[in-house]
Amino acid sequence: MHFHHHGYVTGDPRRQAPRGNGVDRPAELPDEMDVLIVGTGPAGMITAAQLSQYPEVHTRIIERRLGRLEVGQADGIQARSVETFQAFGFADEIANEAYHITEMAFWKPDKENPDHIARASRPLDDEHGISEFPHLIVNQARVLDYFAEYMERSPSRMTPDFGIEFLGLEVTEDPDYPVQVRVRHVAGEGDGQERTVRVKYVLGADGARSGVRRSIGRTLEGDTAKHAWGVMDTLAVTDFPDIRLKCAIQSRSGGNILLIPREGGHLFRMYVDLGEVADDDAGRVRQTTLDDVIAKANAIIHPYTLDVKHVAWHSVYEVGHRVTDKFDDVPDDLTGQRSPRVFIAGDACHTHSAKAGQGMNVSMQDGFNLGWKLGQVLTGLSPEALLDTYSGERQEVAQNLIDFDKEWSTLMAKKPEELDDPSVLEDFYVKTFEFPAGFMTEYKPSIITGNTRHQDVASGYTVGKRFKSALVSRVCDGNPLHLGHLATADGRWRIYAFADAHAAGEESQLVRWAQWWKTSPESSLVRFTSAEGDDDALFDTKVIYQQRHPQIEINSVPEVFKPKVGPFRLTYLNNVFGLHPEQNIFAERGISEDGAVVVVRPDQYVAHVLPLTATEELAEFFAGLFIEPSR
Amino acid sequence: MHFHHHGYVTGDPRRQAPRGNGVDRPAELPDEMDVLIVGTGPAGMITAAQLSQYPEVHTRIIERRLGRLEVGQADGIQARSVETFQAFGFADEIANEAYHITEMAFWKPDKENPDHIARASRPLDDEHGISEFPHLIVNQARVLDYFAEYMERSPSRMTPDFGIEFLGLEVTEDPDYPVQVRVRHVAGEGDGQERTVRVKYVLGADGARSGVRRSIGRTLEGDTAKHAWGVMDTLAVTDFPDIRLKCAIQSRSGGNILLIPREGGHLFRMYVDLGEVADDDAGRVRQTTLDDVIAKANAIIHPYTLDVKHVAWHSVYEVGHRVTDKFDDVPDDLTGQRSPRVFIAGDACHTHSAKAGQGMNVSMQDGFNLGWKLGQVLTGLSPEALLDTYSGERQEVAQNLIDFDKEWSTLMAKKPEELDDPSVLEDFYVKTFEFPAGFMTEYKPSIITGNTRHQDVASGYTVGKRFKSALVSRVCDGNPLHLGHLATADGRWRIYAFADAHAAGEESQLVRWAQWWKTSPESSLVRFTSAEGDDDALFDTKVIYQQRHPQIEINSVPEVFKPKVGPFRLTYLNNVFGLHPEQNIFAERGISEDGAVVVVRPDQYVAHVLPLTATEELAEFFAGLFIEPSR
Ligand SMILES: Cc1cc2nc3c(=O)[nH]c(=O)nc-3n(C[C@H](O)[C@H](O)[C@H](O)COP(=O)(O)OP(=O)(O)OC[C@H]3O[C@@H](n4cnc5c(N)ncnc54)[C@H](O)[C@@H]3O)c2cc1C
Ligand SMILES: Cc1cc2nc3c(=O)[nH]c(=O)nc-3n(C[C@H](O)[C@H](O)[C@H](O)COP(=O)(O)OP(=O)(O)OC[C@H]3O[C@@H](n4cnc5c(N)ncnc54)[C@H](O)[C@@H]3O)c2cc1C
Repeated sequence: MHFHHHGYVTGDPRRQAPRGNGVDRPAELPDEMDVLIVGTGPAGMITAAQLSQYPEVHTRIIERRLGRLEVGQADGIQARSVETFQAFGFADEIANEAYHITEMAFWKPDKENPDHIARASRPLDDEHGISEFPHLIVNQARVLDYFAEYMERSPSRMTPDFGIEFLGLEVTEDPDYPVQVRVRHVAGEGDGQERTVRVKYVLGADGARSGVRRSIGRTLEGDTAKHAWGVMDTLAVTDFPDIRLKCAIQSRSGGNILLIPREGGHLFRMYVDLGEVADDDAGRVRQTTLDDVIAKANAIIHPYTLDVKHVAWHSVYEVGHRVTDKFDDVPDDLTGQRSPRVFIAGDACHTHSAKAGQGMNVSMQDGFNLGWKLGQVLTGLSPEALLDTYSGERQEVAQNLIDFDKEWSTLMAKKPEELDDPSVLEDFYVKTFEFPAGFMTEYKPSIITGNTRHQDVASGYTVGKRFKSALVSRVCDGNPLHLGHLATADGRWRIYAFADAHAAGEESQLVRWAQWWKTSPESSLVRFTSAEGDDDALFDTKVIYQQRHPQIEINSVPEVFKPKVGPFRLTYLNNVFGLHPEQNIFAERGISEDGAVVVVRPDQYVAHVLPLTATEELAEFFAGLFIEPSR
Repeated sequence: MHFHHHGYVTGDPRRQAPRGNGVDRPAELPDEMDVLIVGTGPAGMITAAQLSQYPEVHTRIIERRLGRLEVGQADGIQARSVETFQAFGFADEIANEAYHITEMAFWKPDKENPDHIARASRPLDDEHGISEFPHLIVNQARVLDYFAEYMERSPSRMTPDFGIEFLGLEVTEDPDYPVQVRVRHVAGEGDGQERTVRVKYVLGADGARSGVRRSIGRTLEGDTAKHAWGVMDTLAVTDFPDIRLKCAIQSRSGGNILLIPREGGHLFRMYVDLGEVADDDAGRVRQTTLDDVIAKANAIIHPYTLDVKHVAWHSVYEVGHRVTDKFDDVPDDLTGQRSPRVFIAGDACHTHSAKAGQGMNVSMQDGFNLGWKLGQVLTGLSPEALLDTYSGERQEVAQNLIDFDKEWSTLMAKKPEELDDPSVLEDFYVKTFEFPAGFMTEYKPSIITGNTRHQDVASGYTVGKRFKSALVSRVCDGNPLHLGHLATADGRWRIYAFADAHAAGEESQLVRWAQWWKTSPESSLVRFTSAEGDDDALFDTKVIYQQRHPQIEINSVPEVFKPKVGPFRLTYLNNVFGLHPEQNIFAERGISEDGAVVVVRPDQYVAHVLPLTATEELAEFFAGLFIEPSR
């Protein structure tokens, strides 16, 4: 990230200068806008936050609640989500206020005395060191707060439009604003007033009972049966020794608790299993009182006791495993013929067992996937076809997750004697660990995910999976850094040029590639970057050498890695790297000695892996994806 | 830090509930107050921030400027300062926006072609791994912003009173508010209005021309000669390859530049040496124009060039090495007989060469030293005698620093041919490294710094030096943590009980110590902790065992390490630690196998080191320092 390159700007550098729609952003919801997002949950907020980096696009996010979420809902934050927060600049801040999961404990009936529970095991949460980011617990409200802060500091100066309810929509033939959306003001001066606004694209991020989903005729399919949990955020005095550990507790009676310690050192959440909801339940399970839940919890943790002092939030949370077959408004048989105008994301298109803690996390990845695509299409960088990839990519992820979730919850709900092998639960947890941490997503080949013909030149960067960071040293200042953490959510594509074995200044394949990328009329950089903006406005091109940084003279590094930026056309030197003293990124990520080009999407997924010589394939990959600016 | 222990509080947990003077804090400067701080520089702001944690104390901080500092002044932040920011909760945030120094470069006349400069060496900045905190560069204004944010979120809801100028003061015999301070409102409704306010204590943090210092009859003594530097914060296009490294550049002509890269990727600061200011200079050096400075810089970096595009701030900074003999208003011969009422801190009592980058850092340590002392005295916890230690401790630090500074600047200002050995400069830099990083301070024995009789039971925690953190694992949640980073700027004393070799649950010296600390009428915890508040309100008592954390059953740990807190008297489990898997704190810090008690002051300095058996000495240490609450 550059700042102060227009001159020193006093104050918080995270507060960017307003531009485009951010300059005189109307306080009230206008009659026409580019993107209307319905719902300020995690899915809606991340999409809005991403779009706030495209101030030329007028994006609004409406919410029927009168203000921010205050308490409740989800609280588990996977490492992949923290990685995502890093791109939005608040990973450290939220980690500092969150509970960190490093281990979890499994409690089962004591073999000697099965009326008592006993600790069976205490495995590490991230045994495989899958991520440098932590696994956190913090209330969903705080996640939303950080996204709100990000949007507000963005060039768009975006804030949610609270107190506005989505009623329905219609997709018309209007060439400019084809979607007509009916909304109602539920507060303030215009209370009760209904309006129709005209919009280019709508995102329904309006939760499990999504009205947007209904309006495009899609339904959540899957289990008819739901599972119910008594959830409580609790302050208590207890002698249960693992009260500050994430625990799965099973008692002999078949009772189950998932215990989640929370931020601040005292609060914890308990999910007390209330079982499958019978078909003829007719809402009876929802009548379960807090006292019932507390009594049940006490019975399960026997011989320990729980003296509840205060309950900050509680709910009976009923949920089934369900998913929609498509995440946009284009019928299967018309896909590719007309572009989607309405999208759905998050709980609006998939719901999950509370216990696997997936809902909030996967919903944010939906939004992160969609945001930049809308941004690129609406700013004229890319053709509308880009938007077809959203449903294609995310529906499959959701389906896989549902399958996983089902298996997990079924296991969790079983009585010990029903399990063939009592350790099956724990084994499952450890075996499938990559999945719940959010790192199993692997997108299939499409216009934004290349083929794997050249995968071997960077075997550690699987095409279609997210770019896993590794350590490097920056040449210009000797700073040891995580390469991946430099990729912020600015909507840019990353081109990582891993050099061949030659040093900077020597004739090499890297130099030839750099020359091509900078000057060839075939180069995507040359074709698609507008002459007016920064050299790196579209493609953030970085080079990583096979030498340690003191061996690399910055003046010998090809120009294309030192872009000219800002009104003074200053030279940006921060894109040139050598090996980190303790971790060789080439070895760590299986990069060929002859170098490689790794292309990474704005949402951090590896789009392509190519040898330095495959310039034609690189040009071809971007050819259909970008539109040449008019000159 | 605990939060949510009164129930879940929605919103940012760094925003504490208002208490005491924070509940209805008057917006205008009142006629009477406990503490009046003059000046919102680093010294004043950290003191105010620390006092904001004592909401029972009414503290105000006045500033004659109309608003926050916007640009300019210092920018170098030592690791010790970042460690301090950690205690105030903003180390990560400020580090994320700052430039990080990992190396520096020395440039000298090229041996072959002395008209050209050439890179002589590029040593690591922290070769000795002296701190886990980074060495940062960021504008002083941002440091002040973070302290302002901290104060505003504190229970005191403190904000600076801008637009009020200190005019003079008088210390009277008034038993309640002995200091009468004359101020003038320089803006707003009361513009020009002069008032007298009555105050218990005054801190003059009003910079090098301090009016407070003058009003207590003290003067800055030292060099009569000043040294002048042309300073500019610059955006430029240049072929100088180390423009993103901290550099000391010497040219053959004897010209000198200190180059400081700045935050954001482009900005840098240059200090161009303008030499000693002659006695008969009469302000002439201050007429040096920006063009002169730029021309001089270009001459020095020949054969490289600097095409300056924009200068964000520039100044001719003249400074001498000076220090005041005492930092309060009590004459030497009356020290101990009457208590100080007026203090001075920061540039008001010591000034330093710009080039060693000490001013802001040492000024903050002054304030950190004084803040908690005023807090303890004004809340009735400690006798006024505590206040005598401020000048005693900080004056010596300043004097040492001046001595160091002088040597450093003299060296820097020398022409290469004047140096006996051309590498002397570099050697000096490396040899004295601990000093400029801020970690050489070692307070002498006093009522708050014990003797070193038992130093050998924890040889790595030198009595009088700051508590150097090390890694441990927390028992209740398995989190690997930096022990020292848990000590926030909350004004509490830390008691680290390092266990003997026995495991938790076994009879041991630790158990006997814990029993004594919790129940003995001699125990300072028992004597001085008020019955109404939290068990750990005064003494934050932590235990570190010699076993790995899974071997430690929290239910077997003595009660005193699990204090009851908050309105529900919840049990706080976060104070119990085992060894970190990769770093044995006992080995790392030379702690005896028989255990040790390490007492640490609220400003993070080690106050005492004692064996677990030396309960009497522990009781005695605190006996004079705290006052028993009335019951
Ligand atoms: C009451 C509740 C309790 C939950 N408890 C848990 C839990 O204990 N554990 C867990 O893992 N997950 C829980 N979840 C699920 C988890 O919070 C979701 O998976 C996650 O929030 C999904 O994010 P989302 O953005 O898709 O939808 P949501 O977070 O549900 O956000 C949807 C938003 O849209 C708004 N909205 C809905 N309809 C309209 C409309 N017509 N017009 C305007 N705005 C509208 C809603 O007010 C809401 O703010 C809970 C969800 C709910 C609703
Ligand atoms: C113009 C300038 C340039 C500097 N440049 C550098 C540099 O390039 N490098 C470097 O290392 N250090 C520099 N310094 C020094 C560095 O900033 C100081 O060492 C550091 O700020 C000391 O902090 P302090 O809190 O003691 O005093 P200061 O930061 O000086 O703060 C004193 C405050 O008191 C206020 N004040 C003064 N008199 C009154 C009054 N009568 N009533 C009310 N308020 C009053 C002032 O407005 C000011 O805000 C510079 C200082 C100044 C003033």
